[in-house]
Amino acid sequence: MLYIIGLGLNLKGISVEGFEIVKRCKKIYLEGYTVNFPYAGNVLREFIGKKIELADREKVEGLEIVDEAKKKDVALLVYGAPLIATTHIALLDEAKKSRVKCKVIHAGSVLDAIAETGLQLYKFGKIASMPVWKKNFEPTSFTDVIKDNQKIRAHSLILVDIGLPFEKAIEQLEKALQDSGIKLGQFLVCSMLGTKNKKIYLRTLKEFKEYKIRKPFCFIIPGKMHFVEEGFLRGFRD
Amino acid sequence: MLYIIGLGLNLKGISVEGFEIVKRCKKIYLEGYTVNFPYAGNVLREFIGKKIELADREKVEGLEIVDEAKKKDVALLVYGAPLIATTHIALLDEAKKSRVKCKVIHAGSVLDAIAETGLQLYKFGKIASMPVWKKNFEPTSFTDVIKDNQKIRAHSLILVDIGLPFEKAIEQLEKALQDSGIKLGQFLVCSMLGTKNKKIYLRTLKEFKEYKIRKPFCFIIPGKMHFVEEGFLRGFRD
Repeated sequence: MLYIIGLGLNLKGISVEGFEIVKRCKKIYLEGYTVNFPYAGNVLREFIGKKIELADREKVEGLEIVDEAKKKDVALLVYGAPLIATTHIALLDEAKKSRVKCKVIHAGSVLDAIAETGLQLYKFGKIASMPVWKKNFEPTSFTDVIKDNQKIRAHSLILVDIGLPFEKAIEQLEKALQDSGIKLGQFLVCSMLGTKNKKIYLRTLKEFKEYKIRKPFCFIIPGKMHFVEEGFLRGFRD
Repeated sequence: MLYIIGLGLNLKGISVEGFEIVKRCKKIYLEGYTVNFPYAGNVLREFIGKKIELADREKVEGLEIVDEAKKKDVALLVYGAPLIATTHIALLDEAKKSRVKCKVIHAGSVLDAIAETGLQLYKFGKIASMPVWKKNFEPTSFTDVIKDNQKIRAHSLILVDIGLPFEKAIEQLEKALQDSGIKLGQFLVCSMLGTKNKKIYLRTLKEFKEYKIRKPFCFIIPGKMHFVEEGFLRGFRD
């Protein structure tokens, strides 16, 4: 049997159910290539009390984990909620086709934790994700998502890919928004949500250039706000 | 100190951190008026191993819980993720104003679990919520949200208010969509997501009229789909 288990946002963010299951699995993988963890791997290992093997992109996308789960109980641990990445949905699909039983154990994710900004989860639109730019490859499709959301006055969450430092992400954001004609006033940067080192800031792009922000972090561009949301956000100017 | 703790979607959906905290709180409330639980209150009480007091709307919206948390550690348990309801954000706000320490413990919610449909969480738009209609009061603003989402080809999640049985919700959906001119093909009904009795169906409105569906349930109207999403959804026709 294959278990895809969400770790939640901090070391003890895994659900009681998930913790019980991982304790009895024969093989435990940790998906480590789509996220920046706010804790070290050996700390997690100690907390779980078992051997954990790091699963790289090849391992997960190659779907061999499903094969392995034919013979024994295999757990794939995923930071945050287990099914945000499409690869993990592909695992579900492959398991179904191979008639391997598969169970998903949910946990809180950045999609839940952004509610701590005071912005209503109801009013977020599609999620944008910002990739790392390379020489001669600077994809800006995340600005289309922001534009779409602004059309319906929804808030925009921008998830930033692993490997992109804060200063670089701010630079990319500025350039992409300029090119797409989106005007940006104050917006939110959320760092380490769901952990005890959580920080939320409301600033302008120019102001953020002076900041050092710890990983993992994300951007939120507010849409139309209720006055209660506006009041709440003001607290993050301090 | 005030803890707002998500219970996740099943009895053991609370995080390990949340479970540890609730064990040492002096007073424990359960928010019981915005959701349909998939388990009985006494089962939860037994699992937590402590006295749990049901908090009604007055108790939570009156914010007296914040006052109580000035003197002792108080936990408010919330089904699913803790901050989906705006009332709980108001608690955070009140705590800040009253200088009462407040910590939110996240957990998985229906917003995470809808990923089990195979639809990408990235592509969901704003969330609609369907209230119970009363005589001479039949609000249909949820259709505006669906229309907005359809403008940007996003998927729509419709959360159904407590107290609305499935047959009645389907009736309301049909009437509201007719009046607003939205054409509806096949859509998803998800029941008891995140529990072992989870069911997902892809049917037409007409077909759903013959179904009995267990609470809690929600509707999902797919937007533009990737072929992988389409393939996955076909599995829910069987």
